[in-house]
Amino acid sequence: MSPELIHLFELEGKTVVVVDILRATSCMTTAFAYNIQSMKPVASLDECKALKQEGYFIAAERGGEKVKGFDIGNSPFSYMEPTLKGEKVAVTTTNGTLAITKSMAASHILIGSFLNIKAIAEKVKELDQDLIIHCAGWKGSVNAEDTLFAGALIELLIGDYEMGSDDATVAYALYQQHKGDMLAYVSQSSHAQRLKAFGIMKDIEFCLESDMYDVVPYLKDGSIVS
Amino acid sequence: MSPELIHLFELEGKTVVVVDILRATSCMTTAFAYNIQSMKPVASLDECKALKQEGYFIAAERGGEKVKGFDIGNSPFSYMEPTLKGEKVAVTTTNGTLAITKSMAASHILIGSFLNIKAIAEKVKELDQDLIIHCAGWKGSVNAEDTLFAGALIELLIGDYEMGSDDATVAYALYQQHKGDMLAYVSQSSHAQRLKAFGIMKDIEFCLESDMYDVVPYLKDGSIVS
Repeated sequence: MSPELIHLFELEGKTVVVVDILRATSCMTTAFAYNIQSMKPVASLDECKALKQEGYFIAAERGGEKVKGFDIGNSPFSYMEPTLKGEKVAVTTTNGTLAITKSMAASHILIGSFLNIKAIAEKVKELDQDLIIHCAGWKGSVNAEDTLFAGALIELLIGDYEMGSDDATVAYALYQQHKGDMLAYVSQSSHAQRLKAFGIMKDIEFCLESDMYDVVPYLKDGSIVS
Repeated sequence: MSPELIHLFELEGKTVVVVDILRATSCMTTAFAYNIQSMKPVASLDECKALKQEGYFIAAERGGEKVKGFDIGNSPFSYMEPTLKGEKVAVTTTNGTLAITKSMAASHILIGSFLNIKAIAEKVKELDQDLIIHCAGWKGSVNAEDTLFAGALIELLIGDYEMGSDDATVAYALYQQHKGDMLAYVSQSSHAQRLKAFGIMKDIEFCLESDMYDVVPYLKDGSIVS
């Protein structure tokens, strides 16, 4: 439910799905649906900026806004660009990068969002390992939308998988409770309230659309590819 | 949702309700309903054992079982003893003591369980401060029954309080989803499965009974009183 709890789980030999619905992993999914070549998640703004010299488009968000001097912010719509086709993107985000970094011990790290949830479920079944859904949360805190995604993914896997921890059953119950009103629930969440100040209700609505894209971004040698 | 996340919250000037349904705070509630004088939570078995010399009854549980050489284990039924009336009890438990220790910065620390949930809700309203519900969890992990209690307490406070974090809305949704089948849900939880091995379904059933006792145990000078 948070990168602050991930150390409680064994990741070795398992598949990890990293999720940061608002908006890092929704952006990554969209970017690969629009055929970028690769995406490099980095921890700091400086590290990200330095990659501009190596031919990367650079993307950064802090506190929900695009950072000055960067090419791309953290709206999925900013990745719907023909000019990005075949390009490399370096990205640093508040929570998503941390969740990816803390997942490194896993044997497979997949990038999940509602936008590619069915493709992710199929890939997870194909890999046929134990699964950890790693919610990026918000600065360590549990958040509504990532937990909701975890519950939705669990629903797609029931029958093939069993829930092995109480947080899985909590996420599943959350999704059962709110699958009919996801937008209303997430709009009232603390994270959405923070982001609303920047006028991005359109992003939130888009990030809750299920199964838009058939891509499965995954981590390979420190970069995300698909 | 876990003592591993409590550092993300400001506790100063707030009321904290510590909850460890299976079974530390359910035992504490029962003990005060049976008129013990005070309860001292300590971290280690040795520390607890040493208090025997100072006239304490000593209670300890590790991994769900009473520890050899101690007077009391961690079943609420073991506190339904006329001999404990007016006595001091020293207790060490796996998760409950840690949650209490990590709550020390709060201005009020109350001991909550389903058994005294209405009394707790009334006390919280009377104290009229911001509230943190601190779930003891299981070795750092989120657990079903403590999160369920958080949701149930939130329900009793709605109208007087607003939910200020996403984990509150997650706990509330969990309770809405399972309030009609709490025993079935908790019995399937990972913690209950572990405890079941020790044949304590009777404890679990009892610990999910709402509003049995009108006591509000609270922390004062390092001891719990009521």
